[in-house]
Amino acid sequence: MRDPRQVAVVGVTGYSGFELARILLRHPAIQSSVYYLRETHGAQCLGQLFPHLRGSADAPLRPLSLDAITSSAAGTAFLATPHEASAELAPQLLAAGLRVVDLSGAFRFRSADTFTSWYQLPAPDAATLSQAAYGIPELYAEQIKSAPLVANPGCYATSVILALRPLAAFLWIAPGSSVVCDCKSGASGAGKELRRDLQFVELDENFKAYNLFSHRHTPEILEHTGIPESQLTFSTHLLPLARGILSTIYVTLDQPRTADSIEALYRSFYAGRRMIRLWRAGSLPELQHVAHTNFCDIGFALDPSGRRLILVSCLDNLGKGAAGQAVQNFNHMLGLEEHTALQ
Amino acid sequence: MRDPRQVAVVGVTGYSGFELARILLRHPAIQSSVYYLRETHGAQCLGQLFPHLRGSADAPLRPLSLDAITSSAAGTAFLATPHEASAELAPQLLAAGLRVVDLSGAFRFRSADTFTSWYQLPAPDAATLSQAAYGIPELYAEQIKSAPLVANPGCYATSVILALRPLAAFLWIAPGSSVVCDCKSGASGAGKELRRDLQFVELDENFKAYNLFSHRHTPEILEHTGIPESQLTFSTHLLPLARGILSTIYVTLDQPRTADSIEALYRSFYAGRRMIRLWRAGSLPELQHVAHTNFCDIGFALDPSGRRLILVSCLDNLGKGAAGQAVQNFNHMLGLEEHTALQ
Amino acid sequence: MRDPRQVAVVGVTGYSGFELARILLRHPAIQSSVYYLRETHGAQCLGQLFPHLRGSADAPLRPLSLDAITSSAAGTAFLATPHEASAELAPQLLAAGLRVVDLSGAFRFRSADTFTSWYQLPAPDAATLSQAAYGIPELYAEQIKSAPLVANPGCYATSVILALRPLAAFLWIAPGSSVVCDCKSGASGAGKELRRDLQFVELDENFKAYNLFSHRHTPEILEHTGIPESQLTFSTHLLPLARGILSTIYVTLDQPRTADSIEALYRSFYAGRRMIRLWRAGSLPELQHVAHTNFCDIGFALDPSGRRLILVSCLDNLGKGAAGQAVQNFNHMLGLEEHTALQ
Amino acid sequence: MRDPRQVAVVGVTGYSGFELARILLRHPAIQSSVYYLRETHGAQCLGQLFPHLRGSADAPLRPLSLDAITSSAAGTAFLATPHEASAELAPQLLAAGLRVVDLSGAFRFRSADTFTSWYQLPAPDAATLSQAAYGIPELYAEQIKSAPLVANPGCYATSVILALRPLAAFLWIAPGSSVVCDCKSGASGAGKELRRDLQFVELDENFKAYNLFSHRHTPEILEHTGIPESQLTFSTHLLPLARGILSTIYVTLDQPRTADSIEALYRSFYAGRRMIRLWRAGSLPELQHVAHTNFCDIGFALDPSGRRLILVSCLDNLGKGAAGQAVQNFNHMLGLEEHTALQ
Repeated sequence: MRDPRQVAVVGVTGYSGFELARILLRHPAIQSSVYYLRETHGAQCLGQLFPHLRGSADAPLRPLSLDAITSSAAGTAFLATPHEASAELAPQLLAAGLRVVDLSGAFRFRSADTFTSWYQLPAPDAATLSQAAYGIPELYAEQIKSAPLVANPGCYATSVILALRPLAAFLWIAPGSSVVCDCKSGASGAGKELRRDLQFVELDENFKAYNLFSHRHTPEILEHTGIPESQLTFSTHLLPLARGILSTIYVTLDQPRTADSIEALYRSFYAGRRMIRLWRAGSLPELQHVAHTNFCDIGFALDPSGRRLILVSCLDNLGKGAAGQAVQNFNHMLGLEEHTALQ
Repeated sequence: MRDPRQVAVVGVTGYSGFELARILLRHPAIQSSVYYLRETHGAQCLGQLFPHLRGSADAPLRPLSLDAITSSAAGTAFLATPHEASAELAPQLLAAGLRVVDLSGAFRFRSADTFTSWYQLPAPDAATLSQAAYGIPELYAEQIKSAPLVANPGCYATSVILALRPLAAFLWIAPGSSVVCDCKSGASGAGKELRRDLQFVELDENFKAYNLFSHRHTPEILEHTGIPESQLTFSTHLLPLARGILSTIYVTLDQPRTADSIEALYRSFYAGRRMIRLWRAGSLPELQHVAHTNFCDIGFALDPSGRRLILVSCLDNLGKGAAGQAVQNFNHMLGLEEHTALQ
Repeated sequence: MRDPRQVAVVGVTGYSGFELARILLRHPAIQSSVYYLRETHGAQCLGQLFPHLRGSADAPLRPLSLDAITSSAAGTAFLATPHEASAELAPQLLAAGLRVVDLSGAFRFRSADTFTSWYQLPAPDAATLSQAAYGIPELYAEQIKSAPLVANPGCYATSVILALRPLAAFLWIAPGSSVVCDCKSGASGAGKELRRDLQFVELDENFKAYNLFSHRHTPEILEHTGIPESQLTFSTHLLPLARGILSTIYVTLDQPRTADSIEALYRSFYAGRRMIRLWRAGSLPELQHVAHTNFCDIGFALDPSGRRLILVSCLDNLGKGAAGQAVQNFNHMLGLEEHTALQ
Repeated sequence: MRDPRQVAVVGVTGYSGFELARILLRHPAIQSSVYYLRETHGAQCLGQLFPHLRGSADAPLRPLSLDAITSSAAGTAFLATPHEASAELAPQLLAAGLRVVDLSGAFRFRSADTFTSWYQLPAPDAATLSQAAYGIPELYAEQIKSAPLVANPGCYATSVILALRPLAAFLWIAPGSSVVCDCKSGASGAGKELRRDLQFVELDENFKAYNLFSHRHTPEILEHTGIPESQLTFSTHLLPLARGILSTIYVTLDQPRTADSIEALYRSFYAGRRMIRLWRAGSLPELQHVAHTNFCDIGFALDPSGRRLILVSCLDNLGKGAAGQAVQNFNHMLGLEEHTALQ
């Protein structure tokens, strides 16, 4: 009999996986957790892999084996694996009766074609895709509660969608106008692969734009804001810091609005949502405010005409942008308070 | 008899002033330079003030006195002083026959009203203002050559104007469309004043937007691109690094264009301008490429429709954004090669 | 009737105070906490003071008043106040029946003279001083359990004392030999005061030594290692990062030793002490391993002769070096597990 | 006929090589320079390889070929190549009549055995080794002037040797006492190889010791200070910044000395040496003071007994620690002023 409070975590070598381990290890509802890696390099427990966790994280580490997971009592699996690995593992875990939170991009899109065209990878299994909920609990809590599979969103996408959704839902964006999303991320968002441009000497005192008009998080933003592709421009930049995304978003409103009405719209839209912190007009969130948290902080500035709006949306790319949100989704799947282990 | 190669430098306590000293000390055409400070704290030479310059910069340092400057043979004065101090000093130095390069905002605008409304300070002397050239040599070399006074531009403004001017001049921007300038600067651009948010612990691993819809460089951009205020959105952010500005600029083109035609436009517009480095489509400049230089690097990306253009413009806020450009202006005023001491 | 689980926290404007609040807010044994500040700037709760804590920390904030504290049921007070303020407040709080954990230097020394000569401040009250335990629980747990007042140690001192104490206690240091402690700290250790050398542009890409032969943590190290002043050299440096102290300590051993025997000495000395993590010979702790934790990590390297030993000791200056250790002391005072709220 | 002012530079892909190119490109005495790389990736000039240098550095880049170098008129070769490559190239270039400045470790030691035992590589050619001068011009100017081959020292070694040499030469170090050299370097000193621990996320906000008792610069320090191996402890640490080495050096003096006498010793020892900047007692050099320079700044603090001395020595590991010193050596070899192109 599967117990959803017994969890299997696959792939903790990257930064998101490590952060996931860090949060799960303090999660009060979890009864047992086992970590699986394709290559354990002889390590028996997490503390041997991550010196940061020694003494607080002696959870068992095992070579990855589908059998090992499915023959355990684990009821929930977290996949912090590459897209292809997730595409392969998720259907098998679902078939064995586990529920899955997948941090990869494999199951994030309504249509498998979107995935294949943006990721240049084989289409994920269609039947599995149809069981997936898109994992932003502030927008899709009902689906997440019951979904066998939750596709945890991209970090940039989470930051932009949460900022734009209230305006989009209430049709406050001027029809046909441009929406510009200028996003900046810390280096942990680029992953742990060895890359020249991620070496300290190359990024220190540096800043750059990258993947203009081609970033893979674009289709998530289009699907979940409903803004037409021809109107949305999304750009990404690399900051010389470890953690955090700040998105500056430029919107033309449908009619002149007041700062109060904008604030009221957001407060009402996100009423009761503890992981969203709204800032009053005249003050703006900063990256440090959200580092090492699961919050998404949203602020704004309005020009005197009341027509041009700048939104500022901040989150920790490893927190609300990845591992934190994965646990928030897990909490919804288990009927727990959504901020459990996240404050 | 005044000699333009004998220079007086006023106010070298800030970061721009220090950088100016660093460049002037290696300038081959300068025959003598004297540095003036309101408060010398007993220092007799620059090396006592700046340990970085010991051994290479034992230029004399004197208490600021208008008499001392005007009774010397100095023919050129650089003012790295606050707006009010520049507003007061410049007319007196001009009256005494010196030519002036002013790094403050006091004489940057065609109308004194623009200055007073954006800076909340008394209007600068009108007669002096009428003698001022706006100091971007790539655009106004002729005026600069003969102007008694050159108003050295704002750092953000230089970065944005140089990127937009070719499009604006050739009317390639779609009429009525939004132009979004999302600019990011290192901390030296914020000056040397003691401020909580500029303390190491506050800015390290942080990033934030500031002065949205109210930054003082806005009117410079409006004047020198000709883009109507209602179309231009200019935002500024603070990066956790010391030097550099990167501006990401979003433009809707008047008609579909090719990457080649855009590159050709910029190459032709800036032909012969050594301080502008253009990047081919598909590659983008980064802050490290321009740190400690006087270059402004400009690159771009075009979406498949050929209508949406993203420009990336980089410079060193203390180089081409301040002290470097001041020396470039000085070179034009003296008929020297514009890159003298700047490579 | 005072309840030790009701706590009053005085002075949370500095970095240690903020970190203390962050830890106390998640402490499961605390039944209520009230925060006191000399100047609240109209803020009613911690979240208004620290945007980082909004939503997770709406603990009440009150203007500092001895009456307010003593007329409440609070049984424990934390003082994150300047030395002089602690010297004044602690005796009054003790008199009113509270127990006190003081993060200042006022009560750290056996003799009031040591304090006055190193801090150039009036002597703390002698009767109060005699009730103080020095708050390193790995060394003085018994005293801390029952002490009315615990003097929380200096950050550098903690790092050095924990590394040297086993060798000192077992007389493994060659008599008369030099012990060199070369310590490096992040900028939060220098406090939150506005200082030129702590501005971002000054510390970024910089590194420096400071306070050589005059750092105030020196007498703590002398008292708690027992090494004679003539043998101990202690130096401090400022790192361009926010949090953490790494001390490199050079010892000449009394006789040739093996790495195994050294490791065994430390394992036995710190047996059962969960907040000390010992590293095997051949591996060394790094600052990132201890950032945002309450651990002190200790490693070493031994030269082939077995006589020269280099110890490397790391901790987070706001964690085990300040607020974390304060809570560890509190846990001992209340008979809780020492790592409560610290993992 | 070879012309020493025509230079061949081999291997500019690393950080030292890049810095060397940057300095040579502004060197007024150099009549031509050609850059050679084992793999040019199709680049024809330096600016294609290093975007930083575009517009200022269109020096030719060629595939490495001994023939190409020896058949040119080049009279001087700089080798910024790995130890093995230098060991192979240097004898051949010398045989062809060029003089060589080698930045590798291959020819730094009096005995080939020292090299083989510390580097685990085959011994360099003995005849070549006997023609090599050790390239610290402040100590060995005479040999450097006439040597066919100059072995450019290690960065750490330069910093330590320059600080200790005056004391060692005048026998002011207490016989038999420990000398501790605690050295900290920025990341460019670790080279450009892709390494996990040099990735931004791993080094940002981190600090660590490495290679204790085993760093390859140890034997250089022993040879050129004359301090016995049993007395010298040399440790190295990695700083989260790009450029610079700061060494903190602990010495026990032979007898009580005054600060004045120490300052006088250093001033006299380094009289006329423009690249050494001495600091008065009571002030200390910092890394920022020497970044992007060829200076070695030396300061000190003396304890009240006059017996314990702490030296602080700073330089830029790519400047005086590598490429700058290489050019300083070149200047001596050509009979130029030693600071040519270095200020």
